[in-house]
Amino acid sequence: MTARVVQKIDRTPMDIVDGLAGAGVATVHEAQGRIGLLAHPLRPIYAGARIAGNAVTISSPPGDNWMVHVAIEQLRPGDILVLAPTSPCVDGYFGDLLATSAMARGCRGLVIDAGVRDVRDLTQMGFPVWSKAVFAQGTVKNTLGSVNVPVVCAGAAIEPGDVVVADDDGVCVVKRADAAMVLEAARKREAAEEAKRKRLAAGELGLDIYDMRPRLEAMGLRYE
Amino acid sequence: MTARVVQKIDRTPMDIVDGLAGAGVATVHEAQGRIGLLAHPLRPIYAGARIAGNAVTISSPPGDNWMVHVAIEQLRPGDILVLAPTSPCVDGYFGDLLATSAMARGCRGLVIDAGVRDVRDLTQMGFPVWSKAVFAQGTVKNTLGSVNVPVVCAGAAIEPGDVVVADDDGVCVVKRADAAMVLEAARKREAAEEAKRKRLAAGELGLDIYDMRPRLEAMGLRYE
Amino acid sequence: MTARVVQKIDRTPMDIVDGLAGAGVATVHEAQGRIGLLAHPLRPIYAGARIAGNAVTISSPPGDNWMVHVAIEQLRPGDILVLAPTSPCVDGYFGDLLATSAMARGCRGLVIDAGVRDVRDLTQMGFPVWSKAVFAQGTVKNTLGSVNVPVVCAGAAIEPGDVVVADDDGVCVVKRADAAMVLEAARKREAAEEAKRKRLAAGELGLDIYDMRPRLEAMGLRYE
Amino acid sequence: MTARVVQKIDRTPMDIVDGLAGAGVATVHEAQGRIGLLAHPLRPIYAGARIAGNAVTISSPPGDNWMVHVAIEQLRPGDILVLAPTSPCVDGYFGDLLATSAMARGCRGLVIDAGVRDVRDLTQMGFPVWSKAVFAQGTVKNTLGSVNVPVVCAGAAIEPGDVVVADDDGVCVVKRADAAMVLEAARKREAAEEAKRKRLAAGELGLDIYDMRPRLEAMGLRYE
Amino acid sequence: MTARVVQKIDRTPMDIVDGLAGAGVATVHEAQGRIGLLAHPLRPIYAGARIAGNAVTISSPPGDNWMVHVAIEQLRPGDILVLAPTSPCVDGYFGDLLATSAMARGCRGLVIDAGVRDVRDLTQMGFPVWSKAVFAQGTVKNTLGSVNVPVVCAGAAIEPGDVVVADDDGVCVVKRADAAMVLEAARKREAAEEAKRKRLAAGELGLDIYDMRPRLEAMGLRYE
Amino acid sequence: MTARVVQKIDRTPMDIVDGLAGAGVATVHEAQGRIGLLAHPLRPIYAGARIAGNAVTISSPPGDNWMVHVAIEQLRPGDILVLAPTSPCVDGYFGDLLATSAMARGCRGLVIDAGVRDVRDLTQMGFPVWSKAVFAQGTVKNTLGSVNVPVVCAGAAIEPGDVVVADDDGVCVVKRADAAMVLEAARKREAAEEAKRKRLAAGELGLDIYDMRPRLEAMGLRYE
Repeated sequence: MTARVVQKIDRTPMDIVDGLAGAGVATVHEAQGRIGLLAHPLRPIYAGARIAGNAVTISSPPGDNWMVHVAIEQLRPGDILVLAPTSPCVDGYFGDLLATSAMARGCRGLVIDAGVRDVRDLTQMGFPVWSKAVFAQGTVKNTLGSVNVPVVCAGAAIEPGDVVVADDDGVCVVKRADAAMVLEAARKREAAEEAKRKRLAAGELGLDIYDMRPRLEAMGLRYE
Repeated sequence: MTARVVQKIDRTPMDIVDGLAGAGVATVHEAQGRIGLLAHPLRPIYAGARIAGNAVTISSPPGDNWMVHVAIEQLRPGDILVLAPTSPCVDGYFGDLLATSAMARGCRGLVIDAGVRDVRDLTQMGFPVWSKAVFAQGTVKNTLGSVNVPVVCAGAAIEPGDVVVADDDGVCVVKRADAAMVLEAARKREAAEEAKRKRLAAGELGLDIYDMRPRLEAMGLRYE
Repeated sequence: MTARVVQKIDRTPMDIVDGLAGAGVATVHEAQGRIGLLAHPLRPIYAGARIAGNAVTISSPPGDNWMVHVAIEQLRPGDILVLAPTSPCVDGYFGDLLATSAMARGCRGLVIDAGVRDVRDLTQMGFPVWSKAVFAQGTVKNTLGSVNVPVVCAGAAIEPGDVVVADDDGVCVVKRADAAMVLEAARKREAAEEAKRKRLAAGELGLDIYDMRPRLEAMGLRYE
Repeated sequence: MTARVVQKIDRTPMDIVDGLAGAGVATVHEAQGRIGLLAHPLRPIYAGARIAGNAVTISSPPGDNWMVHVAIEQLRPGDILVLAPTSPCVDGYFGDLLATSAMARGCRGLVIDAGVRDVRDLTQMGFPVWSKAVFAQGTVKNTLGSVNVPVVCAGAAIEPGDVVVADDDGVCVVKRADAAMVLEAARKREAAEEAKRKRLAAGELGLDIYDMRPRLEAMGLRYE
Repeated sequence: MTARVVQKIDRTPMDIVDGLAGAGVATVHEAQGRIGLLAHPLRPIYAGARIAGNAVTISSPPGDNWMVHVAIEQLRPGDILVLAPTSPCVDGYFGDLLATSAMARGCRGLVIDAGVRDVRDLTQMGFPVWSKAVFAQGTVKNTLGSVNVPVVCAGAAIEPGDVVVADDDGVCVVKRADAAMVLEAARKREAAEEAKRKRLAAGELGLDIYDMRPRLEAMGLRYE
Repeated sequence: MTARVVQKIDRTPMDIVDGLAGAGVATVHEAQGRIGLLAHPLRPIYAGARIAGNAVTISSPPGDNWMVHVAIEQLRPGDILVLAPTSPCVDGYFGDLLATSAMARGCRGLVIDAGVRDVRDLTQMGFPVWSKAVFAQGTVKNTLGSVNVPVVCAGAAIEPGDVVVADDDGVCVVKRADAAMVLEAARKREAAEEAKRKRLAAGELGLDIYDMRPRLEAMGLRYE
């Protein structure tokens, strides 16, 4: 596999990206037909962040963060770094210095199927990270990887310029071509949910709101 | 296995339930002879909650949350939902809409050997959940399960109406028939601990308070 | 293996210990050549603590915390308890009473490759713990172990009197003989990082600061 | 929890037990409505064994195999030992000496939610074990447990005298009261499967044999 | 996500497929630049099988194997079934009846990021399976999925008609467009390895054969 | 950490090494006081091997097997390679070419807290490996490590020249200084076990042979 850096990628317009951030992971995931989630071991290093951005992808060897430096040059405001190691790894590829550099380029956060460190500093800086581990283990800069190539990160296929949405529920990817449509579906879903929320809060049951009783009976659910 | 909903269950009186909540998981677990803990991967979605309630149990297929809707109708004030999937699953069976509905019925929280989503909303609502994963993965409503049947949840056998106690240390179940006795034992234990705490804080050693030195010597512990 | 308690151990001077605490885990780990980390499943029970101390080590059977009582007597102000079970275990060896006793002896915290309980109380007391599990499971006092012997804890070899550094990034051990030298290297590293942080914050790239471009080109990285 | 040994238990008749062994785990599990499986990390130490027996249950502390000796006295020909540790443990509770003793009492095998050792010897002796680990770690004999009490083993509730079926697919428990009925259902299932197997081998499709096409179409499956 | 079955897919010519089977997983993986491996938890149910085939892909809900029946109709001789559940699942989607049906269509094996059962029968039939679990847990047929759509299976992106190679080392996917070139590279690699194997067997060192000593010295390796 | 190769190490005499191989892992572990086991995820790639040898240790970066080549030059007949990655890794550091080279130097096997590949070839060659994964993932040769330095491998501290014993039960290390004494203790243990085995096979109970009944009664075990 040739090590390469794709410098020109197509990005999703920022108004769509920001709309998806507002909807959040669970709603976006539902709105696009229950696809696109990254695996659940990816957790935020602190609670409360909700972001979306265009993916700048990194394929990196285990224990080698050289390509992160290369990727930072490719960042545009509104991007999110997405790092997938080429084999399972929990090393701390990323810390406060790289975050300082990424923030200076307008980067909104990092999604990494590996480890991160300096989490106290990152929290104070307000640079959110979703990772599968917090681990101080240092990395080297000896082996090439690639930037802005398609990757599989935590079980999800991600291409550069896809929209990555991340919040306390985890991380979801939306294909660039689908982003506008997904945003529209998400907004409809939110509106519908708001109405249901009021009825449920008033004590109505989902069994009735969704008219589930006949189908439950037909399938043979027995009340005793 | 016939899918069924047991509508009439015997519950533990609320004064006992509330007493157990006050004692907390570690004390209750000790007071009943070190039994009843659910497995440690079940963690609270936010710190600081300490609750107890009567178990309304759900046995659900993997990736199908239909029975949660059915179970909510069976809730009485002071209940806790306990969901055990029929095979290992981390999907997000439960989110803010279901929590809204459960709270409207007086439900105090959810214990689930699977995933949960909308955790930011649940936190803001003050609806505590103990789960083995946070995962936005949506579920379907196609396959029946059962409500208020005996389940094994995270390694613990739980029957409807048993008392479930949950706090930052995890989750513990107390059999309904034992609840009053366990509460009494828990209170004795708390009183005894308070006295010990003062002595330990003053610098006395457990070695002396519990008179351990002779037995350690008899068993052959060698000081060098 | 004879059960034994080594009462006289050599400790690292507290000014060095405190210096290492100030540097933190990631910096100390780098400063000593990227060694000494404990495995990443060890996590703090609350965020924000950053401590260092002389290790008082405990080798304990699974599910038996008797030796913790024995170890507490060996504590001096500035020490940290380090518990390694003799086989994998997640039981809650340690809770608020033991913490009360340890604090009364000047202990700064606990590092345990097993479980801990009463985490709400420990948090309120400000007694930090790094553990691989939070689990209320009680332990017995029936089988001997050893105190202040060399242990392997979470994959790291630790001897009594070694410096243990712990913060939100995890835990790192510094051999007593290396501690002064590592502290000096850590301070140099911090100074160097501070300068780089400013340049990165101003928008300079790591690619340029570290002069990476020629080597990347030589190794064949292809820009497209 | 009082440590106790229940000496008189009701067992399932051996003709039913042997019939269930012949049917195997997958068939028995299906025949009783898809319940009763122990968790999948329990694996046989060698391939090819297929057994069933009456459960003699052991509740043991972590790292303590004293109760195994106690349980062996309770064994009758056709029994299977079922060991559930009181907290997660992978120690080697059982080896060739205990197997020699158990075989002398007519025991057919061991199901253990922990570790086993001497697996080469056990294989040569033809004493099958389903365990979650192979680990030579020795255990002590210092803490009591119980024999022939209800246990939860690898996620399944098992009572003494229940039938345990085990083969290359894992382990399944059948409640004593249901055993005869389950055996009958298993035999019907086997007969039905045999007919289907022939049709499938001849090239017929499950889609047609089970008449799935109309329902797939009704639910909206789209062929492209 | 619309449930759909793509009936017409482009396959890789069988002479290339068979060539890749001969080369095996490790060689193919190296020959295509160290990409394409499925995650290591996927293990064969028996040792010794080495196969390759065109992927017929299945995207299935957790605990629902309906789409396997649909996929079998799409099989052509030389195909391999590749099943990716839409969320993590270890249920036994596949057993001896489905294997009988798949073999009747010329299917060479199954790669599944979930569970399998009837492994004794499958072994006797010579139908190889690579799975992440052996588990008898039955599945339902209530929810649609898709057949012959792109999937991510055990961390690898796989499209229908890609070549899947599987042996005792695990599973590797080769993109259809690259298959001929990868086969050629694999053959060159095998030839080169054969020569090296002889020299190494004769006692020559890799240090000399690969001329590593100068570079090791240049990088500072110190011999003591 | 300076990368270095220690060329002159003290080895344990081969008659002791071979004696320990004969005793096997479980007996050796017991004979030395229940210490020295490597963690249980290390499993043999094939059943039936039982070896011991002098440890030649390797500390390697994740995903980089360069030091294996360096280590092979240091091998003497009767040695075992012991590889500990500097952070968690499952890559396939070792395959049939390296095994060919190692065997040509008299190496008896490999113990690796990471992955291995070409397991079919290794099995046919009779080169045993204990690893935590089988994974074809290739490695690079870009970063230095060390050979014949103390390592922690799978939770056990190992120094060059220590005796490593490995069989179907796992892996155990014996410190060089203790090896003769441990061998003697192992032989005594085997002799004692042989006598017990005969009595147990004849139906005597461990309860009686070990005179457990009085102590069980004294501790309060209740027979019902």
